Amino acid sequence: MFDVTRYAIAAESIVDAGRFLYQRGWSPATSSNYSARIDDEHIAITVSGRHKGQLGAGDVMVVDLSGQPVQSNCRSSAETRLHTVLYELFPDVGAVLHTHSVKATVLSRLLEPGRALELEGYELQKAFSGVQTHESVLSVPVFDNTQDIDALARETRAWFAEHPEQPGYLIRGHGLYTWGNTMADCLRHVEAFEFLFECELETMRVRP
Amino acid sequence: MFDVTRYAIAAESIVDAGRFLYQRGWSPATSSNYSARIDDEHIAITVSGRHKGQLGAGDVMVVDLSGQPVQSNCRSSAETRLHTVLYELFPDVGAVLHTHSVKATVLSRLLEPGRALELEGYELQKAFSGVQTHESVLSVPVFDNTQDIDALARETRAWFAEHPEQPGYLIRGHGLYTWGNTMADCLRHVEAFEFLFECELETMRVRP
Amino acid sequence: MFDVTRYAIAAESIVDAGRFLYQRGWSPATSSNYSARIDDEHIAITVSGRHKGQLGAGDVMVVDLSGQPVQSNCRSSAETRLHTVLYELFPDVGAVLHTHSVKATVLSRLLEPGRALELEGYELQKAFSGVQTHESVLSVPVFDNTQDIDALARETRAWFAEHPEQPGYLIRGHGLYTWGNTMADCLRHVEAFEFLFECELETMRVRP
Amino acid sequence: MFDVTRYAIAAESIVDAGRFLYQRGWSPATSSNYSARIDDEHIAITVSGRHKGQLGAGDVMVVDLSGQPVQSNCRSSAETRLHTVLYELFPDVGAVLHTHSVKATVLSRLLEPGRALELEGYELQKAFSGVQTHESVLSVPVFDNTQDIDALARETRAWFAEHPEQPGYLIRGHGLYTWGNTMADCLRHVEAFEFLFECELETMRVRP
Repeated sequence: MFDVTRYAIAAESIVDAGRFLYQRGWSPATSSNYSARIDDEHIAITVSGRHKGQLGAGDVMVVDLSGQPVQSNCRSSAETRLHTVLYELFPDVGAVLHTHSVKATVLSRLLEPGRALELEGYELQKAFSGVQTHESVLSVPVFDNTQDIDALARETRAWFAEHPEQPGYLIRGHGLYTWGNTMADCLRHVEAFEFLFECELETMRVRP
Repeated sequence: MFDVTRYAIAAESIVDAGRFLYQRGWSPATSSNYSARIDDEHIAITVSGRHKGQLGAGDVMVVDLSGQPVQSNCRSSAETRLHTVLYELFPDVGAVLHTHSVKATVLSRLLEPGRALELEGYELQKAFSGVQTHESVLSVPVFDNTQDIDALARETRAWFAEHPEQPGYLIRGHGLYTWGNTMADCLRHVEAFEFLFECELETMRVRP
Repeated sequence: MFDVTRYAIAAESIVDAGRFLYQRGWSPATSSNYSARIDDEHIAITVSGRHKGQLGAGDVMVVDLSGQPVQSNCRSSAETRLHTVLYELFPDVGAVLHTHSVKATVLSRLLEPGRALELEGYELQKAFSGVQTHESVLSVPVFDNTQDIDALARETRAWFAEHPEQPGYLIRGHGLYTWGNTMADCLRHVEAFEFLFECELETMRVRP
Repeated sequence: MFDVTRYAIAAESIVDAGRFLYQRGWSPATSSNYSARIDDEHIAITVSGRHKGQLGAGDVMVVDLSGQPVQSNCRSSAETRLHTVLYELFPDVGAVLHTHSVKATVLSRLLEPGRALELEGYELQKAFSGVQTHESVLSVPVFDNTQDIDALARETRAWFAEHPEQPGYLIRGHGLYTWGNTMADCLRHVEAFEFLFECELETMRVRP
């Protein structure tokens, strides 16, 4: 059982995030899914296939950390396990956002298989929690896209168990996953990633 | 004769779609035309030459499936027949949108004559009704632009009779046609196409 | 003497146009100037140096066709004569808009001196009054920028006396001039030009 | 001691500027900091780490010209000294804005170390206070990014003591500093710089 008020607050943060992310063009055409922690065992998460700029009362459900619906007949995103492994791994994480921008999609396809996106020398790296200087290196792994979500869940869990200081990852041709202790932190991470992806692509346009 | 309430609902969905599509920059300078099915024999469609972001009560008329005005002295778009052949061919189609974005225009001019735009490996392909995996290939034919709309109507009808699973087409230097069972489906298709066109162009910028 | 109500209507159309054009990013940083005809001898025109997205009651004045202020101590744009020659030359013209977009600026600098921008094969060319087909050629002359406005006024007047069917021109590194019988026509021309400029630049990015 | 009403007016101009600059995408992810002069010895400045599109009553504090907080337990930006040296150097300056756009970030990284960004032949250069013609040269120095703000403060102070006519500078991979006698002047300078940065990058895309 979970606290209903905590669910309502988590759901509201998801609805507001959706309005923002859709308006920015980062969650087009019913893509993306978002979640927020309710307690140690439950998260609120978007119902599959909904318009992310128009989320309402019926569009956020509850799942447990194994990804099973709780008190709901709705179906959560096929990618629910990609969210829950992050909550399992990082007890302080309070929100996970998965977005589908043009920049993340294109950049992830342009990188050679097996290569991470390395970001260095950008002041905006300091927008990520715990980063104090632009002289650090941000390493964003790129996982191959797959419809086998359980396998990808295991793969991302294993990678971030080894690299807990990194704030997100890309799936090739698909999008970004990032997280934070609060929804505000998590939205700041999305903004910072999108900024850096655009910087990288803009640079590649001029220096192909 | 058609049901007036069904006309009013169809017209409202067109007015709302116009506000959205204009605001996105996909229907500039009075370009584009939109339609929605009223019943087996009638569709609501935009009057020729109107500002698509400012559609009002007098800007949506009724035509039958041969493209003739019904209970109206207005003139519908010169491209009305491109809409009606789709309603004839696909009894489940409830809405058709024709948009004029920069991306669709440029991409259609950059492709060699006779070549379709092939899209593969994008998670967002799943935004099209019936597509289950990013591993499918989306094939978007590009027809040459012409002022002979009857000829183009026959050509598109013949192509989609052969390829009913494909969700849209381009006219070179002109724009996109896509459709869906509901206006919401159709708008999702426009968003997904525009996303994919931008991905393709962004990739071509970096890898000319 | 001019009709005050006609002045007020002209001024309102300018204020509304400014809000739209600024929001689109086509009149940044107090650049641009706009005018609308009051009668055969008077036009309403923006006062020099005002924020175009925040035009108010005190920001539109009256000048005669020689560019002299009428019933006003304000100073109109240094480029007032570029407006008035168009009203002199074309008795049907009711509005002139001069905008400063990034695309117009960059494109005009990339073209070789002496060469016009030629646009062909775009369906959107039909957005210009009098154009019936995408198979026509739109020829946009590019004049060198100068602070000698009288000379440029004579030069543009002479060119358009010879080419009355062309709907606008560029000044190198500076911006666009276009006009129409009504403000709505003129705004449609701005939108169509900006669309075509973006198409041309997007194509040049991919095919440098 | 400072006049509280002057503080409140300065703070309001900062809150409004933040909403505008964030909405344009020039202050993402809690980056940027803004200030406005209260009197000869005090400035209002943003508290460190706040969301610039959502600034409120508690997000603007007072510092003296040495950068020390006055009547406040808040911490101002680490870059406070970059603001205060400009107020010391230029008694007429009333506002300083530091923004973090993609264009400023990318352009500053593309320029060779030691080279200033030279802008010439753009009509929009006239948006800078005191510039009368597009034939002037605007020279924007690019300082290397550092976490040693005191050193950078001395360096920028020395450079602008020699070049008081130049309206701003870049920090590599970081962002833009510009100023003006009023907040409106300063915002006009940001808009003009961003326009020119975009023109330069757009040109580099087409002519790499």
